[in-house]
Amino acid sequence: MSILVVGSVALDTVKTPFGERDNALGGSATYFSTSASYFTEVKLVGVVGQDFPKEHVAFLQSKKVDTSGLEITDGETFRWSGKYEFDMNEAKTLDTQLNVFESFQPKIPETHKKPDYLFLANINPELQLEVLNQIEERPKFVACDTMNLWIDIKKPALLDLLKGVDCIILNDGEARMLADVSSLIKAAKEISSFGPSHVIIKKGEHGAIYYEKATGSFFMIPAYPLEEVFDPTGAGDTFAGGFMGYISSQDSTDRETIKQAMIRGTVMASFNVEEFSLDRLATLTHEEIDQRVGLFKEIFRS
Amino acid sequence: MSILVVGSVALDTVKTPFGERDNALGGSATYFSTSASYFTEVKLVGVVGQDFPKEHVAFLQSKKVDTSGLEITDGETFRWSGKYEFDMNEAKTLDTQLNVFESFQPKIPETHKKPDYLFLANINPELQLEVLNQIEERPKFVACDTMNLWIDIKKPALLDLLKGVDCIILNDGEARMLADVSSLIKAAKEISSFGPSHVIIKKGEHGAIYYEKATGSFFMIPAYPLEEVFDPTGAGDTFAGGFMGYISSQDSTDRETIKQAMIRGTVMASFNVEEFSLDRLATLTHEEIDQRVGLFKEIFRS
Repeated sequence: MSILVVGSVALDTVKTPFGERDNALGGSATYFSTSASYFTEVKLVGVVGQDFPKEHVAFLQSKKVDTSGLEITDGETFRWSGKYEFDMNEAKTLDTQLNVFESFQPKIPETHKKPDYLFLANINPELQLEVLNQIEERPKFVACDTMNLWIDIKKPALLDLLKGVDCIILNDGEARMLADVSSLIKAAKEISSFGPSHVIIKKGEHGAIYYEKATGSFFMIPAYPLEEVFDPTGAGDTFAGGFMGYISSQDSTDRETIKQAMIRGTVMASFNVEEFSLDRLATLTHEEIDQRVGLFKEIFRS
Repeated sequence: MSILVVGSVALDTVKTPFGERDNALGGSATYFSTSASYFTEVKLVGVVGQDFPKEHVAFLQSKKVDTSGLEITDGETFRWSGKYEFDMNEAKTLDTQLNVFESFQPKIPETHKKPDYLFLANINPELQLEVLNQIEERPKFVACDTMNLWIDIKKPALLDLLKGVDCIILNDGEARMLADVSSLIKAAKEISSFGPSHVIIKKGEHGAIYYEKATGSFFMIPAYPLEEVFDPTGAGDTFAGGFMGYISSQDSTDRETIKQAMIRGTVMASFNVEEFSLDRLATLTHEEIDQRVGLFKEIFRS
């Protein structure tokens, strides 16, 4: 099976209490693809500028990510700059330069129009809808992410999009904002009423909540108990990549597969935050993943 | 088996976004005893004033709590008044009147001096130490709670106490403060280095973390997914009551029993927050507990 992901590819400048890194490889589609590549075949659609270092494309290709849908266009690559304070829970955006991303019109190559699984990473929901409309055969499972900005200024488009997806993966603050309610349990139910049969709310160091509309039931997992978070950038997309990658590898979305997929997502995110940018995923092995999955299950076996 | 608990018995005035209640039954030992009474025999030691309503004593006795160690003395009962804002995560204390609690010198009755299990609820750690010194035979398992005030002004006594207990149960803010570190994973390890072989950190709506010093391993559980928290007062003591009560009922502190005990604690706390004061525990049945334990296990079975 294979996954198509459409989202951002960026150069990130990140400051944490442990150090800083300039113009490192970043972007939602990048983190997602790299993470998912450990489980399944991944095709990436995005855009970068002429300045995008060739070694970053080579890195994605080394992970067997199909980059034929990565458009290289005139202008500069999307740049994001952010800072984490001591509690590491939320990034403070210092600067955003959309650059080539500003006029990005995702064009899905012919070879990519019948994906088994589809992930619409965090971009303008109008573009997410355009992607969905270009897909020729309904994928087995479509998931999306979003962010506070779109909930704020593009809510109608986002609500349109939600009617067409099976699953939304978003963080606690976004869930509260989208559902306009404080309780995350209520928020999950409310968001599922907008369309998705599956709602996943990520709570950072507190783990994640899964809500299944068909049965009205919840599943919850803690985060992996790390002593130190070095750089949380991309943790959410890395979670989504592990989650969707595992689902694609099993070619199933039954409840048991979804639980196991959430564990893979959690474990992948736990590795990602241990170093800057994609440094940890660059060296990560399947053996390390399997070992941590085993340890993690031990941590919350009832 | 039986548990001895020493702590506060109070009259609480509580405001939440859903309403308010004046002079309701409260106090750490009260919540603990009532919760633990569903699992094991409980003996309570505490102090109240002449104004303490007889029906509250009758209530505890209806739960088969042994109140022979509840001293009734001249003066007024300890009163606490607090308020919860919309997020319900933390109480804002509006007023504290120690009254008879100010000069409380716990006297453990002869009949109570050889408990199988002992819980030192949140009071001045100097008094907790005095209780420990009055116990004639080392109990099988001693657990304690504490609060930010004591970490702030009575840290040496608290550290002395911790050398003599097997387990400390405290919330996330207190754990960070006591260990002087932001990561709860690090905090749990650091606190265990002060003495307790078992450290439980309660995270409110985010569940709880358990750290076992002997194996260096963690166990984590989510909170029960409630849509609404009506009144969080006493949730921590109710958790501790379910936890210790279950341990006493099984007469074991092995890893598996501790996990199951944390589930009982979580479930008891989830009931307690559904209504004001001890109203929900007053009507709670064993069937309801068993049913929620089953549902809860389903929620995080891996």
